[in-house]
Amino acid sequence: MKKDQIIKRRIRAVRRALKRKKISFFLVTKPANVAYTTGFSGRDNWAAITKGGVYLLTDSRYAEQAKSECPACRIIERAVPMAEAAAELVRKLKSVSRQVGIEKSTSLADFEKLKEKIRGRVKTAADIIEKLRASKDDSEIASIKKAAQIAAEALKKTRRHIKPGSSENELAGVLDFEIRKLGALTSFETIVAFGANASRPHHQPGTRKLKKNDTVLIDFGVRYKNYCCDLTRCFAVGKMSAFYRKAYEAVKEAQAVAIEMIKPGVGKREVDAAARAVIKKYDLPVYKHGTGHGLGLEVHEEPVISGESKGKLQVGMVFTIEPGVYIPGRLGVRIEDDVLVTDSGCKILSGKCLHLPFGAA
Amino acid sequence: MKKDQIIKRRIRAVRRALKRKKISFFLVTKPANVAYTTGFSGRDNWAAITKGGVYLLTDSRYAEQAKSECPACRIIERAVPMAEAAAELVRKLKSVSRQVGIEKSTSLADFEKLKEKIRGRVKTAADIIEKLRASKDDSEIASIKKAAQIAAEALKKTRRHIKPGSSENELAGVLDFEIRKLGALTSFETIVAFGANASRPHHQPGTRKLKKNDTVLIDFGVRYKNYCCDLTRCFAVGKMSAFYRKAYEAVKEAQAVAIEMIKPGVGKREVDAAARAVIKKYDLPVYKHGTGHGLGLEVHEEPVISGESKGKLQVGMVFTIEPGVYIPGRLGVRIEDDVLVTDSGCKILSGKCLHLPFGAA
Repeated sequence: MKKDQIIKRRIRAVRRALKRKKISFFLVTKPANVAYTTGFSGRDNWAAITKGGVYLLTDSRYAEQAKSECPACRIIERAVPMAEAAAELVRKLKSVSRQVGIEKSTSLADFEKLKEKIRGRVKTAADIIEKLRASKDDSEIASIKKAAQIAAEALKKTRRHIKPGSSENELAGVLDFEIRKLGALTSFETIVAFGANASRPHHQPGTRKLKKNDTVLIDFGVRYKNYCCDLTRCFAVGKMSAFYRKAYEAVKEAQAVAIEMIKPGVGKREVDAAARAVIKKYDLPVYKHGTGHGLGLEVHEEPVISGESKGKLQVGMVFTIEPGVYIPGRLGVRIEDDVLVTDSGCKILSGKCLHLPFGAA
Repeated sequence: MKKDQIIKRRIRAVRRALKRKKISFFLVTKPANVAYTTGFSGRDNWAAITKGGVYLLTDSRYAEQAKSECPACRIIERAVPMAEAAAELVRKLKSVSRQVGIEKSTSLADFEKLKEKIRGRVKTAADIIEKLRASKDDSEIASIKKAAQIAAEALKKTRRHIKPGSSENELAGVLDFEIRKLGALTSFETIVAFGANASRPHHQPGTRKLKKNDTVLIDFGVRYKNYCCDLTRCFAVGKMSAFYRKAYEAVKEAQAVAIEMIKPGVGKREVDAAARAVIKKYDLPVYKHGTGHGLGLEVHEEPVISGESKGKLQVGMVFTIEPGVYIPGRLGVRIEDDVLVTDSGCKILSGKCLHLPFGAA
């Protein structure tokens, strides 16, 4: 299916939801939702969806790009603040903008400015587009898969730099550079943590150097055609403690058990609980973050796989499975892969990414 | 002055503003504002400021980091969504939380959830902390200056890669890697645009290769100790058209004229108008973006230097001056430096960044 047909289908789905909510003019303000419904990849972006049209609002820096990326949209090059430009459009299209709605992710400041300018009621609506985005179509799956392949390739190329004397910062830099050379970008700030630094799940790489007998955690992602993957690998360089090995095996088993369960209809909470039960069985502290999060245009999106999750897995969902063990001052282990829910179970999209053998250097 | 003293001073200033607004419990939800008032550099972050305390709310991934970065804060490790955790704190501190306020940059979703949970009125407040942040203290200026020095050094090291055959993407990758090797990070996605690609002020680097006679625009920034710089340099490789030279000289003169005017008390709008007048004098199309934007914990913050700006320049403000000329299909030229308003005029913080001679290769 071509890009413009995919976008048309998405717009039709959004319009069906808007009809149910009695919204005739819908302001999309979350960048990823704008990208999803217009194809626009620039940064200054709101969209308006009505029964008859899709409008993309951006500023002069992106106007040329918008015209080429969004042939199906009417491009509005704003010269005033975004909320004012949106209000102008509401006024201009008054025959179709009687029931104005806006995404709940909008800031209070923009919402208040909009309401003041149009002097009418504005409905707020949550998750209309996020819900559609949770199940991926083939083109989206292909992009995430390609992102994961690039990630695997980049980590492989970085491997020879993983040796005593290298700093966290240097390794992160090499990995980012390899990703760039493969024609992609990182999807978030690469995390490289040596030894006990890995007990901070979101450690910022620093000047700490790799020692002779040491451990490494690398959590990184690639953005390809605007779609994200997110992976974590852990390994030991030189000799490894029995305790680290135990934590690693617990995490690996927890991940395998969770992945084994994944298929349409299974409760998200059950997947989360299964992974945690394994860590508990090993008598290790149970990680406090979620077991997984959706991936797509954003690196964190629907579905969330945690103890608070509601609902069941559906075909086409793509998310991470990433249990971990963290002991401040001692170690951190996390293994993270990206999975796609299929008709009969699931597919690991990041399977090509190496698990370095222990004792590698 | 030590970091904890600086933070205490900032908190005192925030409390004075809250007193005027009759807010006894203030929720800070914008990440840069949280960083400013707590010193926290992690990502999951809200802060609450009361008469007697400063509370940092974060999740388990950042709890260890928060404890070491924010000794003066009470750390609340949330296990529920952020707005709910904030509501719990409001209820717990009911003796001081009679008048709850929240930043206007908060999302509608979080605001509605908070109101629902605490069942009371919540005031919204805009720009309390942003206004304080607009004038930098010495430690902030030192960080921005250091960021600009790293940027200059990284561009210098990248120079030998600027040769026919290199792609935009490759150059951006080399530059990012050099920044990383110098112990810093990029402050936004590096822009490298060859030839007519530069007419898109926010072009995304692609596979386009540099030709024998070609032009280059590089717009990039460095984040050092959480503070950002933002620079643009343009140059020609090989022979250059008379038209490109004219555009370059117009932009250079526009920038010089604007910088020449900068001192406390001058209207922001006047600076903007002066730069545009030069481009007009050259009979070239006047750029539609602002002439400058503030820099600090965010790469775009107060003050804005544009035709819509209100108010005057004040000592300690740090912002870009970045006029440009854009002709789709033909060329794009922009020169961007970072300036600090001093008692008597201004200081260019990015002065060490090379302007490559024309004809360089």
